[in-house]
Amino acid sequence: MVKAPTYLDRGAKVVDIGSDFRLKDRATFERVYKAEHSCWELVGEAPYGATELHRDAIRAARLVANPGCFAYTAILALAPLVKAGWIEPDRVVVDGLSGSSGAGAEPSVPTHHSEIGNSAFPYNVVDHRHTYEIEQELSEVAAAPVTVHFTPYYCPFTRGILAGCHGFLNRAATRADLLALYQEFYAGEPFIRVLPFDKDPKASWQYLPYPSVATLAGSNYVHIGVDVDERRRRAAVFGALDNLGKGAASSAIQNMNCMLGLREDTGLAGVGLHP
Amino acid sequence: MVKAPTYLDRGAKVVDIGSDFRLKDRATFERVYKAEHSCWELVGEAPYGATELHRDAIRAARLVANPGCFAYTAILALAPLVKAGWIEPDRVVVDGLSGSSGAGAEPSVPTHHSEIGNSAFPYNVVDHRHTYEIEQELSEVAAAPVTVHFTPYYCPFTRGILAGCHGFLNRAATRADLLALYQEFYAGEPFIRVLPFDKDPKASWQYLPYPSVATLAGSNYVHIGVDVDERRRRAAVFGALDNLGKGAASSAIQNMNCMLGLREDTGLAGVGLHP
Amino acid sequence: MVKAPTYLDRGAKVVDIGSDFRLKDRATFERVYKAEHSCWELVGEAPYGATELHRDAIRAARLVANPGCFAYTAILALAPLVKAGWIEPDRVVVDGLSGSSGAGAEPSVPTHHSEIGNSAFPYNVVDHRHTYEIEQELSEVAAAPVTVHFTPYYCPFTRGILAGCHGFLNRAATRADLLALYQEFYAGEPFIRVLPFDKDPKASWQYLPYPSVATLAGSNYVHIGVDVDERRRRAAVFGALDNLGKGAASSAIQNMNCMLGLREDTGLAGVGLHP
Amino acid sequence: MVKAPTYLDRGAKVVDIGSDFRLKDRATFERVYKAEHSCWELVGEAPYGATELHRDAIRAARLVANPGCFAYTAILALAPLVKAGWIEPDRVVVDGLSGSSGAGAEPSVPTHHSEIGNSAFPYNVVDHRHTYEIEQELSEVAAAPVTVHFTPYYCPFTRGILAGCHGFLNRAATRADLLALYQEFYAGEPFIRVLPFDKDPKASWQYLPYPSVATLAGSNYVHIGVDVDERRRRAAVFGALDNLGKGAASSAIQNMNCMLGLREDTGLAGVGLHP
Repeated sequence: MVKAPTYLDRGAKVVDIGSDFRLKDRATFERVYKAEHSCWELVGEAPYGATELHRDAIRAARLVANPGCFAYTAILALAPLVKAGWIEPDRVVVDGLSGSSGAGAEPSVPTHHSEIGNSAFPYNVVDHRHTYEIEQELSEVAAAPVTVHFTPYYCPFTRGILAGCHGFLNRAATRADLLALYQEFYAGEPFIRVLPFDKDPKASWQYLPYPSVATLAGSNYVHIGVDVDERRRRAAVFGALDNLGKGAASSAIQNMNCMLGLREDTGLAGVGLHP
Repeated sequence: MVKAPTYLDRGAKVVDIGSDFRLKDRATFERVYKAEHSCWELVGEAPYGATELHRDAIRAARLVANPGCFAYTAILALAPLVKAGWIEPDRVVVDGLSGSSGAGAEPSVPTHHSEIGNSAFPYNVVDHRHTYEIEQELSEVAAAPVTVHFTPYYCPFTRGILAGCHGFLNRAATRADLLALYQEFYAGEPFIRVLPFDKDPKASWQYLPYPSVATLAGSNYVHIGVDVDERRRRAAVFGALDNLGKGAASSAIQNMNCMLGLREDTGLAGVGLHP
Repeated sequence: MVKAPTYLDRGAKVVDIGSDFRLKDRATFERVYKAEHSCWELVGEAPYGATELHRDAIRAARLVANPGCFAYTAILALAPLVKAGWIEPDRVVVDGLSGSSGAGAEPSVPTHHSEIGNSAFPYNVVDHRHTYEIEQELSEVAAAPVTVHFTPYYCPFTRGILAGCHGFLNRAATRADLLALYQEFYAGEPFIRVLPFDKDPKASWQYLPYPSVATLAGSNYVHIGVDVDERRRRAAVFGALDNLGKGAASSAIQNMNCMLGLREDTGLAGVGLHP
Repeated sequence: MVKAPTYLDRGAKVVDIGSDFRLKDRATFERVYKAEHSCWELVGEAPYGATELHRDAIRAARLVANPGCFAYTAILALAPLVKAGWIEPDRVVVDGLSGSSGAGAEPSVPTHHSEIGNSAFPYNVVDHRHTYEIEQELSEVAAAPVTVHFTPYYCPFTRGILAGCHGFLNRAATRADLLALYQEFYAGEPFIRVLPFDKDPKASWQYLPYPSVATLAGSNYVHIGVDVDERRRRAAVFGALDNLGKGAASSAIQNMNCMLGLREDTGLAGVGLHP
C-alpha cells in the first residue's frame, strides 16, 4: 500500500499483486482487511485485473489490482452464467480446493506434510476475504447484486485451484446450452479453454469435460468445464488454474503485457505439465 | 441381489453392503441402477443402515441395507439441520471429496498415480446415484421433500470422505445454535463426534472445529463440524469418515452388532491414525 | 536423561524412547550427541530394546533403551545376514526412506507440503546418529566390527520407514538361501514377517516379495524382503515398519510387555491399514 | 527397432528414445532384452546419448541412442568419481527413487493411487536392465570394468528420479575435494548444476547441497550433490532429473540440437517448477 504510490510517482506502471486495490468499496475493504487504507484515491483508477473482464481499462491503466487466486477462478467460472442471468443471483455456492502453495512458503501446521499429505480439510469456512472480490466482480457483470457462498479446502497437491461452482437455474438449460454460452463468452481469449464434450465420455475418462488441476501447473491457462443437472435444475461449473501462474505471477505478466501494448501472450506461451 | 435371499432362507441375518436394498422407490431404483430388481419384496423389510437414524428397525431386522459412503457422510452431516427445518429443503448443496480407495482396488485412469497423485478433479458431476440415498433419507428425516445437489471429486488421499454441505438458512442462527442443535441430535451416539469450538481458534489451527479426513483412517468414527455465515445466511456443515470404515466395513459391523444384540461398539473401539 | 533415574528410584520400570541409553560407548555417545551424559552408570544395565535380539535381557531389565526407528529397521533387516557371516562386514550400505512424521510434529521447511508433497531428497547424508546404533548392534550380532554406510531420504508419505540394505556376498548364495536363513532366524517372532516368494511373481505384482511401507501403518509389524543378484554377488534386503509403531510407541509397549511378564503381543494385535 | 532404418534410409537423423541401440554388446543386449536384434549393424554407429560424455560423436551422428532415465541419472552422478579413479570400481551401489510416471501412462497395480499414494516399495530389485547401461558407460569413462549394484523404488511423486550413489573411497578425500572434482568435470555444461555448499547449512535447510527432485520438474536440468563420510571413507553422490525431461524427451531435443548444429539449449531454457 505504501509502495505503489512511490513507483507511480516515478512514472512506472504497477501491477499490484496484493489485495490493496481490489475492493472498490472502502467500508468493505477496511472491515474485511481490518486496516485503514493509506491511498484510497488510487483505488478508483485501478481496474480489477481479471483481464478477460477489464481488458480495455487495463490497457489504459497505470495501476492494476491483480486478482486473488480463488476469486479469479470463481469469477471466470461464473461470469458467463451470471451475465446471462440464468441462475439465481443470491444462491451461488463455490467450493474451492487449494493446493498447499496457496498457503504460502512459510511452514505451518495446516501445510505440515504429516497433517495434509494424505488428508483434506476446510478452512476459513465462511466470509473468506476473496468472497468480496467474487461478489464485486460478478455483481458488475450481472449488473445486479450477486451473493456468493464460498468455502476453501486444503488438499494434498502442491499447485493449483479447483473451484466447483453451483448455481440454481431459473430457466431450462442443457449442458450444450451452457457450453455454447461459455464458448461464445470466451471466444478469442488466449488463455481460457472451455472444455468440450464432443468425445464419447464412455470411451475414455480423459475425454470427460472437467478440469484436472495438475494439468495446468506452470501455465497461464484456465480450464472450465460445465454441466447441468436437468432433473434438479442445477448448473455446475468447474474452473481450474495454477494459483502461482494464472492465479498470481503469470496473470500479472498478462496484465503487464496489456499495459505496455505488447502481445498479450508474450512470455506466457507454455502449457502446463502433465503429469 | 441373488445372494441375500439365499442366506436369509438359511436363517442368517444379512448386512448387504451393496446398493440393492437402499432405495425404497422401485422406479427410481430401476432407472438409477439400470437394472430390474429380482427380489423387490425384500426391500421393504430392509432398513437403510444409517444406524443413528434407524437403530430400532435395525435391531429388529434380518436384512439391513448398508449405506453408500458418500450418502452416509452427507446424511449424517445434514440430518439435524433438515429435521429442525432451518434450511431451504430444495437448495442443499454437497461437494464430496473422495480418496482414491473410493474408486475401488482395480487400477484405472482416474486413480493412476500420475493422474491424481498431485491433482484433483470432479467426476459423475450431476445425478450421482448416492444423491438418491441422501434425498430419500433426508426427506424422511424432514418429513418433507429435500433436494440435494451433490458433486464428487477425487483428491490425492488414500482413504476417506469429506463432505462440504451447504444450506440456506430460513431463520437467523449462529454457529453456537448449530452446535447445540447437533450436539443434542447426536447425544449418546458412540461414533459421532460433533467438533466443539470452545478453544480459541486463533491459538492453534488444531483447535479449529472442522474435520480433517485422515484423522479418521481405520476407524468407525464420524467427525462433524458446523459453521454459519450470518451475513449471507448460509449454514456450512462438514462431515468426514473413512470410506472403508464407517463408510463400509465397520458400519456394517456396527449394524451387525445391533442385529445380534451385542454392544454396538464391539470390535470397533479403535480411533483413527494420526498422521 | 534426567527423568529415568527419578522413575527408577520410585521402583518403576522404564522404557526410554529417547536416545540416552542406546549407545554403549561413552566417548561415541558424547561425540555424536554433543552432550555429557548425566547418569552413565545406568547405560550398562539398559538393554538395547530390539526385542528380537535382547529378549532375555529385556525381560530382566528395569530400564530399556528403545531403538531409533531407522536403526531398528536396518538392524532387523541385516541381523541374519551379518550373523551368518555371508557379507563383507565393512561395506554394508543402507538407504532409508522416511515419511514426514519421522521429522516430528513441528512444521519445518523439509516437511512443508509444498517442498516434500511431490518430491524426495536426502538429508543428514553421512554420519547420521542412527548409524552408530546399527553398527553397535550388528557388530554384536556378528561378533566382529560391522561398518554401515547409512543415508536417509524424506519421501512424501506420512508414516513409515523403508530401508534398502545392500551387502556384498563373500560366498555363493541364492534368494532361496537367504529366505531360508531369514525364516529360521525369525521363526516364532510374533511381529516379524519374512515375505515369501513362492507365488508366481509374474502372476501379480502383489505377490512380489518386497515390503510396501504403507501396509504397516498403525501396526507393530515388520516386513522383510530378500533378494540376491547372483551375477554381481549382492544381497539386497528390505525392511519396513511404521516409524510411529514398531519404530517407536508400539515397540515400547512390546518391551513393556516383556518387562512385566505379559504376553508380548498384548494390545498389539492390530495389523496395518491397507490402503 | 524396425523403424530407425526406415527413417535413416530416407536421410533423416534419428534420436531413438527406446533401448534398442544403447547396449553395445550384442550378447548382453539379447540376454537382457530377451530379443534378437534385427539391425545390429546400426548399433556401432549410434553413440550413447549422454550428451555430456559423447558430445562430439553425437554431433557427427545420424543415429543416437537416447539413455534410459535411471541410467542417465546414475551415469552423470558417478562419471567424475569413476574417471578420477577415487572409488572401488566393483562396489558401486545405486538406490534410485522413481516417480509414478516412470512406470508409464498405463494404469497398473504399483501405480494405483491406493497402493503408492502414501507408500513406497522396491521393484526389479536386482539385475535391472538399466544396470547394463550404467556399467557400460562408467566402464568406458573409467577405462576399466565398473560393477554397479542398482535397485529402483517407486515413491509417491509424479515426475522425477533421485539416484543415491555410494562409492567406497580408495584414498582420502573431503567433500570439498569432491565438489572441486565435479565442478571441473562439468564446467561449461549448460544443464548440469553441481550444488555448492558455501552457504551455511545450519542457516537454512534450503542451502543444503542435495537435490530435491520436484524442483526439476519440466526442465532439462540435472542437479548433483556430493558428500563424503570421512570416518568411513564413503563418497555419496546424488543425481536428480525429470524422467520425462532430461531423462527422456528434452534430452532427446538436446541431442537433436547437437546433431543439427543448433545451439544446444534451443527450446530447452526453462527451469523446473518449484513447488
